[in-house]
Amino acid sequence: MLTTTADPTVTAVVDAAAAAAEVWAATTPAQRRRALDAVADSLDAHVDELVRIAIAETHLGEPRLRGEVKRTSFQLRLFGEVLADGAFLDAQIDHADPQWPMGAPRPDLRRVLEPVGPVVIFAASNFPFAFSVAGGDTASALAAGCPVILKAHPGHPALSVLTARLVTAALADAGAPDGVFALIVGDGAGRQALTDPRVKAGSFTGSIAGGRALFDLANSRPEPIPFFAEMGSVNPVFVTAAAAELRAEAIARGLLDSFTLGAGQFCTKPGVVLVPEKSSVIEHLVSMTLPAPAPMLNSRIQAGYTAVLADLADHPEVSVLAGGPSGVPTNYEGEDPPGPTILVTGIAALLADPDTLLTECFGPTVLLVTYSDESELLAAARSLDGQLTATIAGEPDDAVVPELVRLLAGKAGRLLWNQWPTGVSVTHAQQHGGPYPATTAPSSTSVGTAAITRFLRPVAYQGFPTALLPAALQDSNAEGIPQRVDGVLVQRGSEY
Amino acid sequence: MLTTTADPTVTAVVDAAAAAAEVWAATTPAQRRRALDAVADSLDAHVDELVRIAIAETHLGEPRLRGEVKRTSFQLRLFGEVLADGAFLDAQIDHADPQWPMGAPRPDLRRVLEPVGPVVIFAASNFPFAFSVAGGDTASALAAGCPVILKAHPGHPALSVLTARLVTAALADAGAPDGVFALIVGDGAGRQALTDPRVKAGSFTGSIAGGRALFDLANSRPEPIPFFAEMGSVNPVFVTAAAAELRAEAIARGLLDSFTLGAGQFCTKPGVVLVPEKSSVIEHLVSMTLPAPAPMLNSRIQAGYTAVLADLADHPEVSVLAGGPSGVPTNYEGEDPPGPTILVTGIAALLADPDTLLTECFGPTVLLVTYSDESELLAAARSLDGQLTATIAGEPDDAVVPELVRLLAGKAGRLLWNQWPTGVSVTHAQQHGGPYPATTAPSSTSVGTAAITRFLRPVAYQGFPTALLPAALQDSNAEGIPQRVDGVLVQRGSEY
Repeated sequence: MLTTTADPTVTAVVDAAAAAAEVWAATTPAQRRRALDAVADSLDAHVDELVRIAIAETHLGEPRLRGEVKRTSFQLRLFGEVLADGAFLDAQIDHADPQWPMGAPRPDLRRVLEPVGPVVIFAASNFPFAFSVAGGDTASALAAGCPVILKAHPGHPALSVLTARLVTAALADAGAPDGVFALIVGDGAGRQALTDPRVKAGSFTGSIAGGRALFDLANSRPEPIPFFAEMGSVNPVFVTAAAAELRAEAIARGLLDSFTLGAGQFCTKPGVVLVPEKSSVIEHLVSMTLPAPAPMLNSRIQAGYTAVLADLADHPEVSVLAGGPSGVPTNYEGEDPPGPTILVTGIAALLADPDTLLTECFGPTVLLVTYSDESELLAAARSLDGQLTATIAGEPDDAVVPELVRLLAGKAGRLLWNQWPTGVSVTHAQQHGGPYPATTAPSSTSVGTAAITRFLRPVAYQGFPTALLPAALQDSNAEGIPQRVDGVLVQRGSEY
Repeated sequence: MLTTTADPTVTAVVDAAAAAAEVWAATTPAQRRRALDAVADSLDAHVDELVRIAIAETHLGEPRLRGEVKRTSFQLRLFGEVLADGAFLDAQIDHADPQWPMGAPRPDLRRVLEPVGPVVIFAASNFPFAFSVAGGDTASALAAGCPVILKAHPGHPALSVLTARLVTAALADAGAPDGVFALIVGDGAGRQALTDPRVKAGSFTGSIAGGRALFDLANSRPEPIPFFAEMGSVNPVFVTAAAAELRAEAIARGLLDSFTLGAGQFCTKPGVVLVPEKSSVIEHLVSMTLPAPAPMLNSRIQAGYTAVLADLADHPEVSVLAGGPSGVPTNYEGEDPPGPTILVTGIAALLADPDTLLTECFGPTVLLVTYSDESELLAAARSLDGQLTATIAGEPDDAVVPELVRLLAGKAGRLLWNQWPTGVSVTHAQQHGGPYPATTAPSSTSVGTAAITRFLRPVAYQGFPTALLPAALQDSNAEGIPQRVDGVLVQRGSEY
């Protein structure tokens, strides 16, 4: 490993985060809720200014960006509700039991989840609000009681600085300690923070190469720490023969809208779509008016997109049905954005060369894969790496479906039935994750209320007097937190 | 990395585990409970034979080994209760909501925990039942729905083979698929299995060096997998001035019993004990009759113990109060086992050289550390690495205690108040884990019912018809599984 000189400004940021960690961890959930609400209110109050800068830096449209601010402030407030509910603490109380049948008396044991400490978060480019400075990782880490060191994405530097200023001011106004949130800039700063022994977890949204490098760095520390990277996915779609027969045009329309949404710059974009070779889905798709070319986020994204697209289009078994790499400048400077591209290949080619054909192509491209027999859908499912999503367009009576669902549940974090994977709702049951390389932590999610558990760890207290126990573990349970008492869930005094 | 030829017998074991994974994952929790109960029944029925072999291979005493079999079968049955309860599935149902305030309608989203796939478990030497072939990791992985490939510990080979034979037969009798459990032998076999792409998680109980090497191997795979290593800990004890004043003799007695239990071969043995320099705790301790020398597990353990003990005793700031390394043979062959050793140093020495003095010494040795001012307890707590346990012998009114509890909660998985850390009860609230190097996964536990979550990952189903949903996610909920529905916990039809 290269030894580099520590940047004193980054060291000072970690100093402040480490000092804030003890104070922030000792706040009540209600105090943290007020702080999250204050951040949400500030984002909403400054939406015009935020969106103006975001348009200039990301080329995303105003309606999308306004919607994303709304989603981001909603997300902060939803974690406030999680804090008020208290179930996230997973409070467990086992009273002493001299007759415990393991052969030795059970002591009084109580367990609760507590914050891990300072967290480094690497922001994404494609959601400048929802997966950036004040995004889901920040909301869940702050809610958990962990200070946040936010490594800005270079794709929207001015927006990052403004958002960080709003977040910092709102947190301070709400009484949060100095150092509970800070922005850092540059890859070196990010690596320094991630390897600082006082940092206890990291998270990331972006490419496989970038996420894996940081995951490896986090694990190479003398004290390895959990690193939650959300990375690449081709989000396969499986169209059964019956669905294609019944709804070819609707499927084509839904697919076109989904893979071109936001210029295809979603980690959940449907990138590979298996369709029956004899269906009219492809016919419908290529006969539709393609949406106008839309500008991509920045030159680096566009260069990466065109390189992967060129490789795919050059594959001997792949044909270009619409669009294609020619004429798309790799050095995007705001002109000549790429139009949508539709590629096609056959199932045999996919199974023969999955490493190439199942590569994520981050932009408005879809690869159609024709099959002749539905059993080939199962072979395709088996050939997959880990995915964020997998989608079935099918009919409930399709013979292949039960087995296909079972296989895909082993490969993806979220399965969809006759819906499209773009658009990730922020809810309790959401799961935005999946086996590697979709993420480095398949048991975690980066969207939805369960995301808070990434930044918590259990601590058990054995034989403690009430006054020394965390509030959530006291028998009196003044806050009415859900507790599992002697193995039975109890809330507000009533067994359930 | 060295490339070695794959052992075809290990490949065949993984082939069988991979085939069993689909079948075992599709069993109901009730079916898996019957299988776990069958294993427990078989262990209990063969306790005489098991214990006879265990005595010969581990030199542990008969009462301890009989108790450990009881604990092990209890543990298997307790995971059966977890399966019957269903809360471990963390079933979440969010119905579609067109008014969901994030700015876009909420789809119908349902999430449940599903098994990760085949697991490789590296058995420990010091609990030949409870942390070995049919131990906690095996019970929790099988309960989760994951096939187990068990790498035997070389310390008790015949016992491992017999236990595996009983486990395999009981599982088969209960209808479990072939390949759901298999024993493998040898470090090379363990490494081959851990790096097989079809294996999806690993666990380990043992030394820091061994655990870290396997953790690094698991993370170096093209597809990294979670690796849960439970490793070293000095399990510090903090005796306050008031406690020492009031209960010096009782504290000395409790400490002596705890650090010599099982010849000190517990990962929770209290290894470092801070006592007031003016108290009579040390006086009492050295005046007590030490227990008779007890044989250690095997020659390798004894050689490791005597080497670390010699280093500690040779430290210029450490004095030997009882026992000591002289006269302890490093090549144990069943004779001349080591007697208990009591060492002492001062707090200044500990803070000056924590890396040496806070090294785990796996055997019947304790290092006493004298302090003069209780604020030094806080400095000692801050100097700690991650621990499995931390213990306070104190009085509720001690001024130092609240801050000490807070600091130790950041360092250890389990805190004890006026109890001793040896003896890890198997309960719902148990937490046997801790920050590195106590474990490689501070958010997990290897003892207690929460251990099952190590081998599960969430899968969300969006927009699925009822018939295609897992039973736990159906609105009818015929099994009465606890579900969180639209954010509210519900069981057996009644909101709670």
